[in-house]
Amino acid sequence: MQVSSLCVAKFPLSVKAQLPTLKTQESMATAPKWAQKTIALPPYKRGCHLVTPKIAKEIEQDLSGFKCGLAHLFLQHTSASLTINENYDTDVRDDTETFLNRIVPEGPSAPWKHTLEGHDDMPAHIKSSMFGCALTIPITDGKLNMGTWQGIWLCEHRDHPTSRRVVVTLNGI
Amino acid sequence: MQVSSLCVAKFPLSVKAQLPTLKTQESMATAPKWAQKTIALPPYKRGCHLVTPKIAKEIEQDLSGFKCGLAHLFLQHTSASLTINENYDTDVRDDTETFLNRIVPEGPSAPWKHTLEGHDDMPAHIKSSMFGCALTIPITDGKLNMGTWQGIWLCEHRDHPTSRRVVVTLNGI
Amino acid sequence: MQVSSLCVAKFPLSVKAQLPTLKTQESMATAPKWAQKTIALPPYKRGCHLVTPKIAKEIEQDLSGFKCGLAHLFLQHTSASLTINENYDTDVRDDTETFLNRIVPEGPSAPWKHTLEGHDDMPAHIKSSMFGCALTIPITDGKLNMGTWQGIWLCEHRDHPTSRRVVVTLNGI
Repeated sequence: MQVSSLCVAKFPLSVKAQLPTLKTQESMATAPKWAQKTIALPPYKRGCHLVTPKIAKEIEQDLSGFKCGLAHLFLQHTSASLTINENYDTDVRDDTETFLNRIVPEGPSAPWKHTLEGHDDMPAHIKSSMFGCALTIPITDGKLNMGTWQGIWLCEHRDHPTSRRVVVTLNGI
Repeated sequence: MQVSSLCVAKFPLSVKAQLPTLKTQESMATAPKWAQKTIALPPYKRGCHLVTPKIAKEIEQDLSGFKCGLAHLFLQHTSASLTINENYDTDVRDDTETFLNRIVPEGPSAPWKHTLEGHDDMPAHIKSSMFGCALTIPITDGKLNMGTWQGIWLCEHRDHPTSRRVVVTLNGI
Repeated sequence: MQVSSLCVAKFPLSVKAQLPTLKTQESMATAPKWAQKTIALPPYKRGCHLVTPKIAKEIEQDLSGFKCGLAHLFLQHTSASLTINENYDTDVRDDTETFLNRIVPEGPSAPWKHTLEGHDDMPAHIKSSMFGCALTIPITDGKLNMGTWQGIWLCEHRDHPTSRRVVVTLNGI
């Protein structure tokens, strides 16, 4: 594997070299780091929403300290989802919501047993497992290394908007 | 990023501080750790099953040593899946199985070419990619940091129950 | 958690032991490492394709240096996907493509607003979120620790084949 010099680190090599002297700021920067934070996203109406700016704002300062690593986003809910998709045209988010509503039956004719929490609840659970509640994104040179057209979506599957918690875990060097 | 003091670690800082003296148990606890284990889940009948207690029992002792990190669960099969969803009402699991069977054709009228391993095999492969075979869950203060209503589901997509292997990898401080 | 001696490491223990002497090659091997590389997959026609050999060839040399860890694959696109599924019978890949085309409407009768980039574009975005654009796979003893029948698939959802970028991040000991 050809790897950029930026993102390869075998930590003890630098420790070894430093033993007789003081650590420099530079060598410190290559050490493994962990950071974890719970973000509260504001309530969004049912549908797919681009939340890259909101997420980035919360973590960009810490991200800047990582030359190479992984960012993990974990939504602590079972009736919404996180996915990565197109970041430009809002029609793509609307069409995706249209698809989800077409594919998952809802209302009186739906075959669900779990109906106590509302007609939109069981469909929301299914959509949550279809798209998933977690994302792992590479960090490169202090930034989320997504493609040009990729963005982070929060998909709210319930009718009633509520705040949603995301546990962000950063790990890298 | 505002991070709790619990979960931020820049490892070499503590190493540096310890050089002149013996390491204490406390400082050791902040060092990067890796653990990996293969768990065999017992055979489950076709459908969705809550396996949080079984998984937790296998890893809780090791988990307790991590203040902050990530737990990765990897199902080594292509006809079952792992997902995170509601942990309370068994109807939610039943309804999800109902949905999967509605959306993926099965039996003589299904359009599959791959039929040698049984009518339930090709649908099982599709369902496995729909929900996925892996989960990554944040670890916080020695526990899986899922939401109140979240649980780990094993979804068995084959008719004949078989034991399923899950490779668990823990990484953190 | 019973863990194999191979894959458990509490890094500072070895550092501590080494302080008075030189590090040996053996002890170095247990240190946390990160590597990251962007791979360009060649253009594939619309459908599901087994890319395990191509991915493995690109990373196998680096992989061999990890006794225990995680490999993260991140596709930087929103109209293709990565999934893990059956690695033997090409019919399984064909049938999965058949399923995706059945479930996501395409063409003049489809309900999409986002049509400027072609009739296959909006369906491609939806399929990308259904299967996802990222995989995390355990590394054990220098190899991707997948099940016997598991393989990495690139699913190309556009009609026109284009090269696809995958950011691979390796982390472990």
